[in-house]
Amino acid sequence: MIITIVGLGLIGGSIAKELNNRSLGTIQVYGVDKNPSHGEKAVELKLVEKVISMEEALAESEVMIIATPVNIIEKILPHILDNLSDNQVAIDVGSTKSDICLAVKDHPNRKRFVAAHPLAGTEFSGPEAAILNLFHGKKNIICEKEKSEPEALEKALKVFEFLGMNTFYLNPEEHDKHLAYVSHLSHVTSFALSQTVLEIEKDDKQIFNLASTGFASTARLAKCNPTTWTAIFEKNPDYLSEAIDVYIKYMKKYKELVDQRDWTGMYAAISESNKISGVLKGIKQNIKS
Amino acid sequence: MIITIVGLGLIGGSIAKELNNRSLGTIQVYGVDKNPSHGEKAVELKLVEKVISMEEALAESEVMIIATPVNIIEKILPHILDNLSDNQVAIDVGSTKSDICLAVKDHPNRKRFVAAHPLAGTEFSGPEAAILNLFHGKKNIICEKEKSEPEALEKALKVFEFLGMNTFYLNPEEHDKHLAYVSHLSHVTSFALSQTVLEIEKDDKQIFNLASTGFASTARLAKCNPTTWTAIFEKNPDYLSEAIDVYIKYMKKYKELVDQRDWTGMYAAISESNKISGVLKGIKQNIKS
Repeated sequence: MIITIVGLGLIGGSIAKELNNRSLGTIQVYGVDKNPSHGEKAVELKLVEKVISMEEALAESEVMIIATPVNIIEKILPHILDNLSDNQVAIDVGSTKSDICLAVKDHPNRKRFVAAHPLAGTEFSGPEAAILNLFHGKKNIICEKEKSEPEALEKALKVFEFLGMNTFYLNPEEHDKHLAYVSHLSHVTSFALSQTVLEIEKDDKQIFNLASTGFASTARLAKCNPTTWTAIFEKNPDYLSEAIDVYIKYMKKYKELVDQRDWTGMYAAISESNKISGVLKGIKQNIKS
Repeated sequence: MIITIVGLGLIGGSIAKELNNRSLGTIQVYGVDKNPSHGEKAVELKLVEKVISMEEALAESEVMIIATPVNIIEKILPHILDNLSDNQVAIDVGSTKSDICLAVKDHPNRKRFVAAHPLAGTEFSGPEAAILNLFHGKKNIICEKEKSEPEALEKALKVFEFLGMNTFYLNPEEHDKHLAYVSHLSHVTSFALSQTVLEIEKDDKQIFNLASTGFASTARLAKCNPTTWTAIFEKNPDYLSEAIDVYIKYMKKYKELVDQRDWTGMYAAISESNKISGVLKGIKQNIKS
């Protein structure tokens, strides 16, 4: 069985690595990447057996997994579906779902496509960032499962099962709304935090000597790839804007509590925010490998 | 040698645990805590040999380490200094320094006091949160070292060396300004993020199924103790308010980029925020023990 990964970055590379290293030779893993140095690196790191062209991939693969930035997925997916036969499946693993699903809504081959989003990642990017176990024990979302042929869906589920994931189902709008709050907003808060501290650093070189694990945790996502994340924001602007609005409202409330020296109100607000612990408990951390 | 830890929470408890477990019996570690159940727990967990009263501590200890919330440090420190003899040292380990230093500025025993802030912590609290290696390889700040007698300073440095820390020197104002940006602000951003997502969750119970490692990282500090953190904010309101202001400015800029669909500007902003990587590289993570 040949599985081709299109886009050999953090996510595509980690899927490739898992399939290539743990399928005991039952799966041949090929790669497609428009960046030749990414392709070479992916072969060198044994993420994929070889790098092929999109045309070769369309001719040879039983499964194609599309892991490019989301704006590119939207662009290349119709062309991929144009060329798929009835024993081939295309799966996308992009972090937004509405525009991608919309782009192939009326495509005659829509049934050979599965729209997915494995909820996993790190702050690093490129083929060098690919790690084993990235997906293990984490959640995968599939959207519009009713639009995929049962046998195509089944194949996709097997891939995500192989990666150790549990699959849930949502419609694309719900997906994009939820992700704006629990993922995309977290990235914006990290980017803004990073820039705030970098601004102060212009006047004061010593400030970073004092950064500790708390700062590292909240600013970690500020290392994320700008191409990947600009595309995600571009494909989810309305929900993201709404989430940033609610967030700024709370930041302003904290500023007001500080400015009014309202420490009873501050205690109450922090206690309220503590209720997130139960949620955080359920989140599996990345296993080093 | 008897060292007494006043306040057996995360920080005091972790200092006690380190001293009690790794001094090979050369140090007797006692504890003072106004909460009897914290005291009992600290003895049960072998953080301290026994719990004693403040009066006993003042009579018997060579070194007293004060690790209560910062507003309490400010209140009890003058009383502690009133009762210290010339062979005793008091060290505070609070996260703000200006008001604490101000409270004992003209105290006749100021020279027996060392104002310190070991830059370490986790999101957990209480004696159960105490861990070994919390301080290892991390930075410690001492303020107004010229106001401590050389021999008292030397004793404090030995304690922080024992914990595996490197000590730096800052004045209290600089300390409080820097920490507002690289620590206190991070906590506010986490509290606000947690409340934003909890607000959405009222309408949508499913949202938390989708929270992943990125959210966990940025919202981790929202588990922090409200008593500890209300006191820190209360003791550093001006710098914190300034830091929140700068931060809100950047959050508004991100909202504007999204609302104006300015993806070139977005790419540039994220790239700018990426410059934080160099800083984050230098931060040592907590070692599990």
